[in-house]
Amino acid sequence: MKKEKLHKGSVKVIPLGGLGQIGMNITAFEYEDSIIVVDCGLAFPDDDMLGIDMVVPDVTYLKENIDRVKGFVITHGHEDHIGSIPYVFRELNVPIYATKLTMGLIDVKLEEHGLTKMVKRKIVKQGQSITLGQFRVEFIRTNHSISDACAFAIYSPAGVIVHTGDFKVDYTPVFGDAIDLARFGEIGKKGVLLLMSDSTNAERPGFTPSEKTVGAAFDRIFAEHKKGRIIIATFASNVDRVQQIIDRAIRYGRKVVVEGRSMVNVIRVASELGYIKMPEGTIIDIDLIKNYPDEKLVLITTGSQGESMAALSRMAEGTHRKVSIKPSDTIVFSSHPIPGNEKSVSKVVNELGRKGATVILEDTHVSGHACREDLKLIYSLVKPKYAMPVHGEYRHMQANAKIAELMGIPKKNIFTLQDGDVLSVSEESCKVTGKVTAGRLLVDGLGVGDVGNIVLRDRQNLAENGIIIVVVALERGGNHVVSGPDIVSRGFVYMREAEELIEEARQLIQDALDDCINKRVTDWGRIKMIIRDTLSEFLWKKMKRSPLILPIIMDV
Amino acid sequence: MKKEKLHKGSVKVIPLGGLGQIGMNITAFEYEDSIIVVDCGLAFPDDDMLGIDMVVPDVTYLKENIDRVKGFVITHGHEDHIGSIPYVFRELNVPIYATKLTMGLIDVKLEEHGLTKMVKRKIVKQGQSITLGQFRVEFIRTNHSISDACAFAIYSPAGVIVHTGDFKVDYTPVFGDAIDLARFGEIGKKGVLLLMSDSTNAERPGFTPSEKTVGAAFDRIFAEHKKGRIIIATFASNVDRVQQIIDRAIRYGRKVVVEGRSMVNVIRVASELGYIKMPEGTIIDIDLIKNYPDEKLVLITTGSQGESMAALSRMAEGTHRKVSIKPSDTIVFSSHPIPGNEKSVSKVVNELGRKGATVILEDTHVSGHACREDLKLIYSLVKPKYAMPVHGEYRHMQANAKIAELMGIPKKNIFTLQDGDVLSVSEESCKVTGKVTAGRLLVDGLGVGDVGNIVLRDRQNLAENGIIIVVVALERGGNHVVSGPDIVSRGFVYMREAEELIEEARQLIQDALDDCINKRVTDWGRIKMIIRDTLSEFLWKKMKRSPLILPIIMDV
Repeated sequence: MKKEKLHKGSVKVIPLGGLGQIGMNITAFEYEDSIIVVDCGLAFPDDDMLGIDMVVPDVTYLKENIDRVKGFVITHGHEDHIGSIPYVFRELNVPIYATKLTMGLIDVKLEEHGLTKMVKRKIVKQGQSITLGQFRVEFIRTNHSISDACAFAIYSPAGVIVHTGDFKVDYTPVFGDAIDLARFGEIGKKGVLLLMSDSTNAERPGFTPSEKTVGAAFDRIFAEHKKGRIIIATFASNVDRVQQIIDRAIRYGRKVVVEGRSMVNVIRVASELGYIKMPEGTIIDIDLIKNYPDEKLVLITTGSQGESMAALSRMAEGTHRKVSIKPSDTIVFSSHPIPGNEKSVSKVVNELGRKGATVILEDTHVSGHACREDLKLIYSLVKPKYAMPVHGEYRHMQANAKIAELMGIPKKNIFTLQDGDVLSVSEESCKVTGKVTAGRLLVDGLGVGDVGNIVLRDRQNLAENGIIIVVVALERGGNHVVSGPDIVSRGFVYMREAEELIEEARQLIQDALDDCINKRVTDWGRIKMIIRDTLSEFLWKKMKRSPLILPIIMDV
Repeated sequence: MKKEKLHKGSVKVIPLGGLGQIGMNITAFEYEDSIIVVDCGLAFPDDDMLGIDMVVPDVTYLKENIDRVKGFVITHGHEDHIGSIPYVFRELNVPIYATKLTMGLIDVKLEEHGLTKMVKRKIVKQGQSITLGQFRVEFIRTNHSISDACAFAIYSPAGVIVHTGDFKVDYTPVFGDAIDLARFGEIGKKGVLLLMSDSTNAERPGFTPSEKTVGAAFDRIFAEHKKGRIIIATFASNVDRVQQIIDRAIRYGRKVVVEGRSMVNVIRVASELGYIKMPEGTIIDIDLIKNYPDEKLVLITTGSQGESMAALSRMAEGTHRKVSIKPSDTIVFSSHPIPGNEKSVSKVVNELGRKGATVILEDTHVSGHACREDLKLIYSLVKPKYAMPVHGEYRHMQANAKIAELMGIPKKNIFTLQDGDVLSVSEESCKVTGKVTAGRLLVDGLGVGDVGNIVLRDRQNLAENGIIIVVVALERGGNHVVSGPDIVSRGFVYMREAEELIEEARQLIQDALDDCINKRVTDWGRIKMIIRDTLSEFLWKKMKRSPLILPIIMDV
């Protein structure tokens, strides 16, 4: 590609999600008439997004420029990189490019949403390149906590950008080969404008251990707990972890049971595509466990984060239909709690302990993300002119920026950006030159974006204080109370035990209404305000609480 | 005390709180006509206790036996050991015994609740004993993350029980002397029936480091960050930590500013009682900070857990009235996030980073609780016949039980109990012989116990799905709609953007009502049910959501 040498103009990097937060990774790259997009992930809701199922990116910018969008390239098959595809592709119709396993997992999603026929997909192998408009994208083999992960070298007339995706350096991976460090070096030697690298673990010192170290821990556990069932909870998407469990099951003569919807889905896809290998008959249906003695069984299950509806949580609570925990069970958490999930994991651990089971939490997980020394390795191979930390909260991106600085990149060449920033990159300069629409759409049930800040604020208020509804029927014209005031509440106090309080409140409102009528107040807005203020003041004085107060006036 | 040798009958241990949970520590000890109570703590609400301020124990059992209750003995001045005193002592009037600092902190609480005159208090020194009915309680010096902490040796005619309270082994404490290990040994030599020991860190290997190691980290931070302000967030109650910060401030020529209500309170009490020492003029008022250059200031503040209303959080958000974060500030978290607080701490760290400040999170905290090897030391000194792990979730108590077993106590002599269990202990036997009322009362505003499961379930539902209220006015007799149906919602969808949906729902309800009238349905309960079902089905089909639906019928 001669074009690559020309360094004409500048290429724009436009993160539409994933900066300053965990998840929802999506970044557009733009050169003249060509736009390509890397990843299309979802985020899980923050604690204050009450009732929200997931968060997807606002892709207004892509919709407005749809005629220039040449395609999406996907680094790997995790939810935070593919999870928004079914939402975004309802409205965008462009091709998706990904490696085989990644595409298999995307297919499951498209199928669930009935979009299979609409979206053009093309499988790309690690090491291959594809041309999309004025861009060429090279898929570089990396390691991660799922197989078939890639970094991208994005070639444009303005120069080369390397995007690592989520990655770790694993010299002894369970499936496939180690990350193609040599290729990173080769591309680096030719000159790279910008490196966008995974910040997730940038605060952690040292190197991330190999996935194989978990296998060694499993060996010890299988050798030491030969008498009962072994139940292992892990992330459904960690195909290599599942392979390692299956390998031990075979070695120790146990059958494997898979439980939890996402786990069943992923193992099915990964097996079909050859990413999990095992002899026929290794996996048995959960209904058949009664035919095997406990010491001949391994259960692989979801719920490693203590998610209340996941299989392991239901087993712990005693509400799982097919598996009851016994004192002879050994339960392994092959995971670390994601920040925010510590308490729910602990709850499950406590329940399992109460049922007498042995719970193992240590040495059975390694991260899928590069630690500080791994990041230094990539910086030293790629030797970019500019650096832009991606994937992570601000603190992680900042830690990554510090590593870049330590590796000799001048501070002014390092960009810790926000979603929507437009970074224009060329050999001559790199700077933020604009801002596009970027934001989060909240998904609640089938609604996408119909729950906004006002609704969330109400939910927060309802959650903390409950609601009191005051209904009164006024004669048309407004100067005669036909019925009420009636008081109904939810989430405030248990009404039957607070009759006196409610009657006192009702009387106060009655008085306030009488006063309104005497003073010939007919503006309903004003009457509602008087009801609200009267009740609110009474409740605060009486019990230091402020429920949401909703006066309803009926016109009869 | 000759009585101690007699081993007559059995002594009952009745945990009324603190088992299987963090916080709310309170345990009764009963021998014939004498009851004494160790600690009277509160718990912070679980995530699913929406809107709840704190949790206090149900002391029905003590109220019912008030004539036998000789007094409360308190191990130390932390909220989870003294926080319920103002709630429990509204109804119980018995004396409290505690060491000086502990009592100083209790006094602050009693004062705030106007109970000072009601409650008899007596200060006891470490090493002293008091007699309460048939019990003698010896206060044994321990170390913890607050000064003046004690373990208790509880002598009864049935034998001796040792209760460690919260403790660590610190050979080089900041204030006072190391834990009186020799006394534990001496009592152990004479024979101890039961050891109740702190399970909090029983899962953690090794020894808990000395508080002094934090001082060394502070030295490095003060030496390296000489150019701007240093802002240190820590637990208000960690008086020794505060002393260490003040020591460095003096050494490095900085004035100290104290911010956050609980921090101001604790430092005032601790200074008055001589537990914090400094030359006059070391602490300056926050309003005077403008008179000093940044490099001459240290701020000690609350908010180390990311609590949204705490001083540091407000500084990070830019809503603190007196302190704005600058890029030259160094902010030190002298704490670990308590499980469940990781995300809120991270949020504050991110905000501080965005403002350009340097944030230090490492090496600036040590735990106040004994780790595994420390616990082994106590077991080996006390050599109890029976063991009962206390303080902690089930997993922690279980880990402590395993240590007891490892230390040679037979499994059948180890008791991992639940609140309310009555453990009858004697030289001859130790077993659970009954169950008394024990539970949690939720505090919301001024209400204690008036928010129960029904209200919480409503709050949970309101939080996740919001509420829809359908009001309709029916003519007395019920076969004519006078007004409505009107639909109002909160926390469901933003009504102005969902007019069509709401109108469609209104029409459906109207039809259902017409149908009721045609069929002469006059039972309001039934009409309400029909409204609820109609709307609920419509919304689930249309948008897969289930808001709380509240039909209100007015009689006019």
